[in-house]
Amino acid sequence: MSNTYFTPGPAELYPTFNQHLQTSVNEQIGSISHRSQRFRDIYKYTDEQLRTLLNIPATHDIYFMGSASEVWERMLLNCVEHESFHLVNGSFSRKFYDYAQSLRKFAYIAEKPFGEGFDAADVDVPEYAELVALAHNETSSGVQMRPTEIHKLKRKYSKKLFCVDMVSSAPYPDLDYSLIDSAFFSVQKAFGMPAGLGVWIVSETCLEKAERLQQYDSMTIGAHHTLPVLHKHYQTFETPATPNVLFIYLLGKIAADLNKIGINAVRKQTEEKARQIYKFLEQTDGYAPFVNEERHRSQTVIVANTTRPANEVIGAVKEAGMIVGSGYGKHKEGQIRIANFPATSAEQVGKLLDRLKQVG
Amino acid sequence: MSNTYFTPGPAELYPTFNQHLQTSVNEQIGSISHRSQRFRDIYKYTDEQLRTLLNIPATHDIYFMGSASEVWERMLLNCVEHESFHLVNGSFSRKFYDYAQSLRKFAYIAEKPFGEGFDAADVDVPEYAELVALAHNETSSGVQMRPTEIHKLKRKYSKKLFCVDMVSSAPYPDLDYSLIDSAFFSVQKAFGMPAGLGVWIVSETCLEKAERLQQYDSMTIGAHHTLPVLHKHYQTFETPATPNVLFIYLLGKIAADLNKIGINAVRKQTEEKARQIYKFLEQTDGYAPFVNEERHRSQTVIVANTTRPANEVIGAVKEAGMIVGSGYGKHKEGQIRIANFPATSAEQVGKLLDRLKQVG
Repeated sequence: MSNTYFTPGPAELYPTFNQHLQTSVNEQIGSISHRSQRFRDIYKYTDEQLRTLLNIPATHDIYFMGSASEVWERMLLNCVEHESFHLVNGSFSRKFYDYAQSLRKFAYIAEKPFGEGFDAADVDVPEYAELVALAHNETSSGVQMRPTEIHKLKRKYSKKLFCVDMVSSAPYPDLDYSLIDSAFFSVQKAFGMPAGLGVWIVSETCLEKAERLQQYDSMTIGAHHTLPVLHKHYQTFETPATPNVLFIYLLGKIAADLNKIGINAVRKQTEEKARQIYKFLEQTDGYAPFVNEERHRSQTVIVANTTRPANEVIGAVKEAGMIVGSGYGKHKEGQIRIANFPATSAEQVGKLLDRLKQVG
Repeated sequence: MSNTYFTPGPAELYPTFNQHLQTSVNEQIGSISHRSQRFRDIYKYTDEQLRTLLNIPATHDIYFMGSASEVWERMLLNCVEHESFHLVNGSFSRKFYDYAQSLRKFAYIAEKPFGEGFDAADVDVPEYAELVALAHNETSSGVQMRPTEIHKLKRKYSKKLFCVDMVSSAPYPDLDYSLIDSAFFSVQKAFGMPAGLGVWIVSETCLEKAERLQQYDSMTIGAHHTLPVLHKHYQTFETPATPNVLFIYLLGKIAADLNKIGINAVRKQTEEKARQIYKFLEQTDGYAPFVNEERHRSQTVIVANTTRPANEVIGAVKEAGMIVGSGYGKHKEGQIRIANFPATSAEQVGKLLDRLKQVG
């Protein structure tokens, strides 16, 4: 019997995933050369589908990386000479900050307690910060920063580069790429694929910065997956190293399926399911939403406090063939995390909530 | 109709690949958490199978990376303070050298013309070089450096760290890991998998060096996939970032299949098929082995000069459902590359040679 995964990534595979995987087997996608026209067509197709889905303009390239964590490093190496600024409100936004320190950048931090989120009005960007790094969705704490707030902040600090972590929310956030210089996500979250591919969206402005930094004798922007080299290969829809061709193919197919539904409908379905879950958490004994402020509540990774020990709740739900995530790190004992990705339907969510009610 | 791929990677999938892929679908491997016991068991299993197959001792860890190209950078960042030394005899060994320059290391080079290989006696390692980087198998030119020669060189320069690129030959080379500090490969070559996973084998000595470099105030060993962090997570068979869980699972299964055959038999089969191919190239009008010196001829990526324009040969072979690789870079016009990986049987090789004979 197969389980339904409500885990925040790796997560439930998108319903069409296995069918696309079978097609890829039939078409021998795993064997084709990454220097062939067939591959260039695949990259182009996936690029087009992602552009449509996320409304990405021609000013931005789309690159395929090993993981979103790799993007943290690439962004800092390629776009920060001295100083970066990090809005930290959970473990993943903190790791971006930690990477900056490991790379010997001067990293500023603005921090909120776990479970709280940022609004534009809260934030003063330091004068010499070159990059503002923030998470649209904090996978660890279930906190979001609304795109309107992100856009407002960028308008106030228009000279700074803005990089948005949307690892566990894309394609949900409606980012305006005339304001956002870079964003990135992983495919094992809301795109319903296995882990093993990061997607990096990058503007011309970032590329120009990297090219400038590369001129400095004392400076290295790294060797692998640098922006100038990624950009050069992107001109012909190729990649510098052999990429995960199969996953790029599958991502294009799933993005196309989401485009058939339409991004507005996908977002509306996400919000409806989130409303259903938060309402349940507020009204049901044994549960409460962890994030207090409604505007900061993630629509895609929902964190709940449990009255019973969380591992008992998780175990009891699992008996009914459903897997929910544990709380992050030290929050394992009293929290569960419920992913609300396009791969799980309102009906499946309803079934989960029924079960949670029985066992809470 | 499906084709048989004799391309040097991505390549023909291992005959059991699709069956393991189906099992992974049934077991929902794409959805399991990388922080679960199930994942730790998978990592441990793949680690054990690779250890058996490649005879890797407990002094060495095995890490999973985005690609082999990523390993070039990690090796240089983590194990070279100032100076590296590169044996360059083709495009991929040159890229390792290029990476060292991009990272502002002082990189020495010893170079051979395209199609020629190194023996230990040819090589003087510069006094202050910390790392000797060499390719067991140059995918671009079809040249190998025999393990006995690699070992001989290391014995002469025992204080230097040796890092062996076996991207397109592992598990073929019988490396002695009491001598070799680090080696790496990609799964889309001789392991018969789709691209998207690099494997990095690293000794304690490399780890100690990385830890030492990390102490220096002025020095960064990078932020992503650093040796100290990889090693720490490896203690519990975990990874710092979400890895390609599915491919790690599949690699373990294919390594196990190769272990069932036995590494000695796998190597012998490889050598027999290589002998068959080289003999054909020497005896058949229209073809000649590109690499003159027999001891430098790769057993896994065989480069042939063609009398007819290479693209005509490739096209004519393709009509019979077989795909051979084109020559690398500027050698496209007069060369083909034939991969000789475990995924293709002696019978399939025979069929390819028959066809090549007809169309040469």
